[in-house]
Amino acid sequence: SVNPDLASERQTTSFCVEKLTALLDGGAEQTRIRRAVVEAIQSDPVFSTENQYFQTQNERYEAAVRKAVHLQKKMHEMGWTENGPEYKYIYRALSGDVAFLLHRVFMRSISVLGSDKQIAKWIPLATQLRLIGSYAQTELGHGTYLQGLETTAVFDIATQEFILNTPKISAMKWWPGDMGRSATHTVVFAQLYIHGKCYGIHPFIVQIRSLQDHSLCPGITAGDIGPKMNFEAIDNGYLMLKNVRIPRENMLSKFCEVRPDGTYVRQGSQQINYFTMTTVRISLISDEVLTPLMKACTIAIRYSVVRRQSKLKPGEQEAKILDYQTQQEKLLPQLAAAYAFHFINHYLQELFDRGYREIQRKNFDMLPELHALSSGFKAVITHHCTAAVEICLRACGGHGYSLLSGLPSLYTKIIASCIYEGENTILLLQTARFLIKCFMAASAGHPVPPSVTYLAAVKPGKCPAKNKSDFLNPDIYTEAYQHVAVRLISSTAAKLQDLIQSGAKKYDAWNQCTVQLAQAAKAHCHYITVKNFAETVEKLETKAGIQRIMKHLCDLFALHGIFSNTGAFLHDGYISAAQTDMVTASYLDLLAVIRKDAVPLVDAFDFTDKSLNSALGSYDGQVYQRLYEWAQKSPTNKMSPAYERYLKPLLHNTLSKL
Amino acid sequence: SVNPDLASERQTTSFCVEKLTALLDGGAEQTRIRRAVVEAIQSDPVFSTENQYFQTQNERYEAAVRKAVHLQKKMHEMGWTENGPEYKYIYRALSGDVAFLLHRVFMRSISVLGSDKQIAKWIPLATQLRLIGSYAQTELGHGTYLQGLETTAVFDIATQEFILNTPKISAMKWWPGDMGRSATHTVVFAQLYIHGKCYGIHPFIVQIRSLQDHSLCPGITAGDIGPKMNFEAIDNGYLMLKNVRIPRENMLSKFCEVRPDGTYVRQGSQQINYFTMTTVRISLISDEVLTPLMKACTIAIRYSVVRRQSKLKPGEQEAKILDYQTQQEKLLPQLAAAYAFHFINHYLQELFDRGYREIQRKNFDMLPELHALSSGFKAVITHHCTAAVEICLRACGGHGYSLLSGLPSLYTKIIASCIYEGENTILLLQTARFLIKCFMAASAGHPVPPSVTYLAAVKPGKCPAKNKSDFLNPDIYTEAYQHVAVRLISSTAAKLQDLIQSGAKKYDAWNQCTVQLAQAAKAHCHYITVKNFAETVEKLETKAGIQRIMKHLCDLFALHGIFSNTGAFLHDGYISAAQTDMVTASYLDLLAVIRKDAVPLVDAFDFTDKSLNSALGSYDGQVYQRLYEWAQKSPTNKMSPAYERYLKPLLHNTLSKL
Repeated sequence: SVNPDLASERQTTSFCVEKLTALLDGGAEQTRIRRAVVEAIQSDPVFSTENQYFQTQNERYEAAVRKAVHLQKKMHEMGWTENGPEYKYIYRALSGDVAFLLHRVFMRSISVLGSDKQIAKWIPLATQLRLIGSYAQTELGHGTYLQGLETTAVFDIATQEFILNTPKISAMKWWPGDMGRSATHTVVFAQLYIHGKCYGIHPFIVQIRSLQDHSLCPGITAGDIGPKMNFEAIDNGYLMLKNVRIPRENMLSKFCEVRPDGTYVRQGSQQINYFTMTTVRISLISDEVLTPLMKACTIAIRYSVVRRQSKLKPGEQEAKILDYQTQQEKLLPQLAAAYAFHFINHYLQELFDRGYREIQRKNFDMLPELHALSSGFKAVITHHCTAAVEICLRACGGHGYSLLSGLPSLYTKIIASCIYEGENTILLLQTARFLIKCFMAASAGHPVPPSVTYLAAVKPGKCPAKNKSDFLNPDIYTEAYQHVAVRLISSTAAKLQDLIQSGAKKYDAWNQCTVQLAQAAKAHCHYITVKNFAETVEKLETKAGIQRIMKHLCDLFALHGIFSNTGAFLHDGYISAAQTDMVTASYLDLLAVIRKDAVPLVDAFDFTDKSLNSALGSYDGQVYQRLYEWAQKSPTNKMSPAYERYLKPLLHNTLSKL
Repeated sequence: SVNPDLASERQTTSFCVEKLTALLDGGAEQTRIRRAVVEAIQSDPVFSTENQYFQTQNERYEAAVRKAVHLQKKMHEMGWTENGPEYKYIYRALSGDVAFLLHRVFMRSISVLGSDKQIAKWIPLATQLRLIGSYAQTELGHGTYLQGLETTAVFDIATQEFILNTPKISAMKWWPGDMGRSATHTVVFAQLYIHGKCYGIHPFIVQIRSLQDHSLCPGITAGDIGPKMNFEAIDNGYLMLKNVRIPRENMLSKFCEVRPDGTYVRQGSQQINYFTMTTVRISLISDEVLTPLMKACTIAIRYSVVRRQSKLKPGEQEAKILDYQTQQEKLLPQLAAAYAFHFINHYLQELFDRGYREIQRKNFDMLPELHALSSGFKAVITHHCTAAVEICLRACGGHGYSLLSGLPSLYTKIIASCIYEGENTILLLQTARFLIKCFMAASAGHPVPPSVTYLAAVKPGKCPAKNKSDFLNPDIYTEAYQHVAVRLISSTAAKLQDLIQSGAKKYDAWNQCTVQLAQAAKAHCHYITVKNFAETVEKLETKAGIQRIMKHLCDLFALHGIFSNTGAFLHDGYISAAQTDMVTASYLDLLAVIRKDAVPLVDAFDFTDKSLNSALGSYDGQVYQRLYEWAQKSPTNKMSPAYERYLKPLLHNTLSKL
């Protein structure tokens, strides 16, 4: 039975939830396939996540290995293949709680960096899980700066082998998933030396554990790096190499080869390889960033119509907490952001597909723009969504703090996305470098890539809005965002120029501008997100109910951004103080409007209760019963040795009845 | 041996670290006492936190009970008493990792709410730990709104007993610490009924577990609420009561009593009791909020001078990450905030001590102001410090994400402070209500409490700063903060009036203004913090080196606040766009200045390595060695059953040598 306070929220929906779900999935057929995958996975007890919040890191690891091995069987049974339409839904249906994710990266790196012969040897074994691979790049002392990696691979002509070494502790490989306990092999990135000359970083396949008894191979020290904020299921590992010899054939040699006589040969174009690395940043957005935010919104919003606390009107029943303006102001902008980023992700996916086709045709023109977009959006979306999940967690008060709410795990996992695959600040500065370059080019009248043509058409002027409803016009706010992006990019470019002209070294001038450069990169991505949301809404014209509510969300996303950062818009007077008051008024009005459809808007994300794994967020809203039922299963509800050891000696001296 | 990259940071200190430590402690004698307590606790192996990051919730609970019992012995041995100067340092030295904290609340509630007879009966038993108490207020369905609690206590004249019940699931007590597994008794808050009439919430002492065998008493259902984001050591519990009978004498009766014939008698003044509750919000700031932030700053800043990544200047060695402007901009404002809030906390403590003396003299005039200050500052400080710890965590990249860094635990613990002892948004609105009232009074020419007299002296005008160095004048920025606070309070008061005059109900108008009211309350607290920091710096005149660096931190704190929220200052033109550019320039300049003293500034917090319990933050900066040593101790470095069960069957089919 559905909690009546939640049921009532579904009775006055202004749009068709099922149609919105199909829109989010990219068509009703996709929805059907997704649901079939989810059903097949979640009805299989091997994939259960039921006890997840009660398990130790060791138990989580074991379950993840069990699931990974079972998944292979399941895919075979179901007829799912890596190229089939079901594939992309499997990981999501498992909530990522499965081992051997780095094994896939191991396979991909061999496919992309290996010769045909290497592919033919390793890929079939890996596909059948007859070995388990990992990907050993990051070191204790080096993450961001790859050229600084310290592991060495010295070519020994006499034996036709590479000798791998970890010359000092900071060179120890650290973090690679699947390496701590599972992997038998790994791709090690090391500085290649031939005849004492360094040729830079290259990838080598190294066996680290015996295939007979899983013991560490000679010269190998490896293990698990221990507890982390999340990812308990993954055995992130460390690896030290001491005179580990591998055959010459184990250097991945699609692009570079060491001949038997020690000659170093570079061949082919690595462009497509760099492009692959760039796309990883975009490909993680959907499952690792948007899905967690959508789950957090679902949990927090459903809870907020079930939870009643204090009285809004004297003499009446206690109010649903979502009826308080402050609660709306916490949650609804996060909901709008989930939609905004869903649509920009869709846009980026299409752009990258197009880029891939161009690159295959040896047209590399789009590469700098794609690199800048993937860096900037990875940083902006992961940062924004991490903050949003934290807001959802805190908006649920004490119950949000219980692991049983599901929110702490979503948060402790999503926050890692700000760090991995490129630390966010570094990425923003890469985008900024591109923007400054394009701005200079545009100023000099040179052509620039499509996403930055707006930099060429700088118009001074003022925002023409006359009343608060003018701010519900997408042209008005999109132009305001554009104006701010141009202003921040151009003013930082000017500061950079000034510093250099006053005699500062270029690298020093750059460092002195980095705080503002990062802001400029953010403003650029924010502008494109708003513009894309507005354009998406416009294209929905045939789906009236959906278009109306999406328009509200787009307005809310845009106005929330102005409301929270008015200084950027006020700075040069593009928007006046009176206009920011109009923005505030429109923004607060919108909260009350969207609040009415808040539950249907999260229902459209279509998560099953098993996917959410939350005592607060289930479809039926039976929050208190579920918290109580789940708590009773906790291992902390067994007798503790603490009683016999410490408490009994104290208490047995007390009178039996006080 | 100290890492040379860290050692070099300590060679050019512009002030005496030891003197700054004494200033923070409130005198060199306090420093001596604190160090003695820390030494005594941390050298005792029973109090070790060495394996904390590897332990399960069950192991943490057991250790916390062991420590709590041992602490009693230790205090006796050391001659420490609850009223002695050492007492306040004990909890900090234990990093809060000890059981029976709610037992202390149980005792305090009896001391404050109980009759002399009740105190004489219960306190000696509790002091000797011959019973273990808890404090059962919060219910599944009620936290913030105490009047809404649903547990009932019905007086039965025939037997002279109260009959306690949990009428529905939302009335189940939920969260009380020490109740899940340890407590034998608890103070239950319940609606008192006599002859069918409800007299509101009252406290009752209820035995929940046998003193003989710790089994649950008849009618009692109780247990542990399960896993949380942190506080693994604490057995937060649930409690259901079914016709539980307790003697009439068990209602705490200092202020209210039920006579044998069922007459309800109210006696004495509860003001001092309410005041006690208010002070809890202030008393938690030091240990629960400032200490974690200071620890996070220590860890992140020490790590940032040891970690080298990428090149700042071409051809040179990789740079310390603290030399990047973006890293300075992440960490140094958090360091400045730690100092700013340390000083405002000192100010609030003194104010509350004065308030306590006044109230004992039956002068209750200060109560509304103290309530408003404790609410607002609890919200502002916990929010700000939580965000700051998160920034420190993320600024350490991947290594910050490891539990071994200590940062995740600091974060997952401090975030709870935004929720407990009054949810932050609710608290801000209580402060706002006070501010609106005072603003109206001041506008009408009535006298107002000292902290808000500035509302009476509203001066229009503009910020007089002419160049960036003018923004290093505390008068300039303090007045800007004051101006913004007045503007936000007065404009929200005006909006509230307008809404009511246009016919809105008062409660509805209030709800429509709450987003802005919360902002106004924050601005008020921010202003007082800046003002107090500037005044504190001024009083340091005899300690030149310290005064200089504190002045820099005060400037940084103030300018960071303007830089991050320029809209509020630009809105009515008090600060012009050109002036915000001056703020930005001064702010960025300050980063480079303070960066030089960053390590000594965290050294002054004087944490031992054991207090920090961080592989990144130790005094010697041997980060990589420690990460490796600690990881090797992780229980995840034992053979997992997953190998025999799942991996071996796959791998033994593979050739032994590939």
